[in-house]
Amino acid sequence: MSQGRFITLEGGEGVGKSTQLAYVRELVESFGHRVVATREPGGTPLAESIRGLLKGEAGEGMDADTELLLVFAARNEHLAKVVRPALARGDWVVCDRFTDATYAYQGMGRGLASARIESLEHWVQGELQPDLTLLLDAPVELGFERVAGRGGGYDRFEREARDFFERVREAYLHRAMAFPARFRVIDAARSPALVSADIHEVLLALHAAVRAEPEEGDRV
Amino acid sequence: MSQGRFITLEGGEGVGKSTQLAYVRELVESFGHRVVATREPGGTPLAESIRGLLKGEAGEGMDADTELLLVFAARNEHLAKVVRPALARGDWVVCDRFTDATYAYQGMGRGLASARIESLEHWVQGELQPDLTLLLDAPVELGFERVAGRGGGYDRFEREARDFFERVREAYLHRAMAFPARFRVIDAARSPALVSADIHEVLLALHAAVRAEPEEGDRV
Repeated sequence: MSQGRFITLEGGEGVGKSTQLAYVRELVESFGHRVVATREPGGTPLAESIRGLLKGEAGEGMDADTELLLVFAARNEHLAKVVRPALARGDWVVCDRFTDATYAYQGMGRGLASARIESLEHWVQGELQPDLTLLLDAPVELGFERVAGRGGGYDRFEREARDFFERVREAYLHRAMAFPARFRVIDAARSPALVSADIHEVLLALHAAVRAEPEEGDRV
Repeated sequence: MSQGRFITLEGGEGVGKSTQLAYVRELVESFGHRVVATREPGGTPLAESIRGLLKGEAGEGMDADTELLLVFAARNEHLAKVVRPALARGDWVVCDRFTDATYAYQGMGRGLASARIESLEHWVQGELQPDLTLLLDAPVELGFERVAGRGGGYDRFEREARDFFERVREAYLHRAMAFPARFRVIDAARSPALVSADIHEVLLALHAAVRAEPEEGDRV
């Protein structure tokens, strides 16, 4: 049985990640693969507890390096208990955010040095990287408007500096240029249906490539 | 004003660490220094929450690498918020367990490679090491008997493999040999008063060395 595939969805606020995650899941199931849909930080009871520390009151004002260590502790648990076992049994994993988000949010957003993130990335992941990363990209202003449209969210965004989200978007685009083999940048300023159509095309290509592989391929 | 000193107490179960920690605190205060007495994992509200994850039900069966990342996340927060600021303002810090315990318990005890611990140690601590580490050493059997004498503790110890605690003791003694400049091994098989007498001697020597330093020394 061949190894599964690891697909991550990335993007800033209001780019439509949740909608498209559900679409990716349906699509991959329609190809005949079992799908594990998950998210980071989280995905196991312990990792969700760590997520609680990161997002809750206990985490207010925590040191930026502590935040990074907690993110990778949650990631390690998620990989050990969910992602690696799923891939090993041939399931496909679809994950809402992964290490690219760490570079974008903790790295560019909070100004942590990339080399320090890389060091923990290698410590935790070894050679493991997503097979495909779908980056939903839209202007920051548009994401703001969409989140505001959901109601209640705008105040929080007003409190955060606009610059922060501009830096996050830039960091994501920078990652996509640095790793073109696995990244696909999708223009998420368009309607959800058009975004899904692009994702459909990308996933059909991945599906075809996997089917073309010999059953007992070299890929590990 | 000169930088404070960082003293750690290490040792297995039942060696009398709590009693001697209180003694070290009194002694250092009698030298005229302000003392911050603290412990690991813990020492800040967030780090105590992480300790809760490590010791609680959520942590049952956690991956060994996740445990190590959580230990260092708590350590980073403790260093950033408590230890480094205290040392910078000239206070002395007395800490119940530090990174040597990580090598002993997670490293030798659980079989994690030292190189992986060293990598996180360097990531978190940079060049920071204790100025003095008091290792309270006693035969594992004796520690067992003392804890049993407190009542209620023996069952838990019976559940753990004796081998585990033998490996922990060996790991501590190995660390002491590897870092003779900062380690002092105290024979903790004797009465608390005799153990305190040895600690008194060691701390008097440290006190004298600090007094002999020029006020604005090179030490940073």
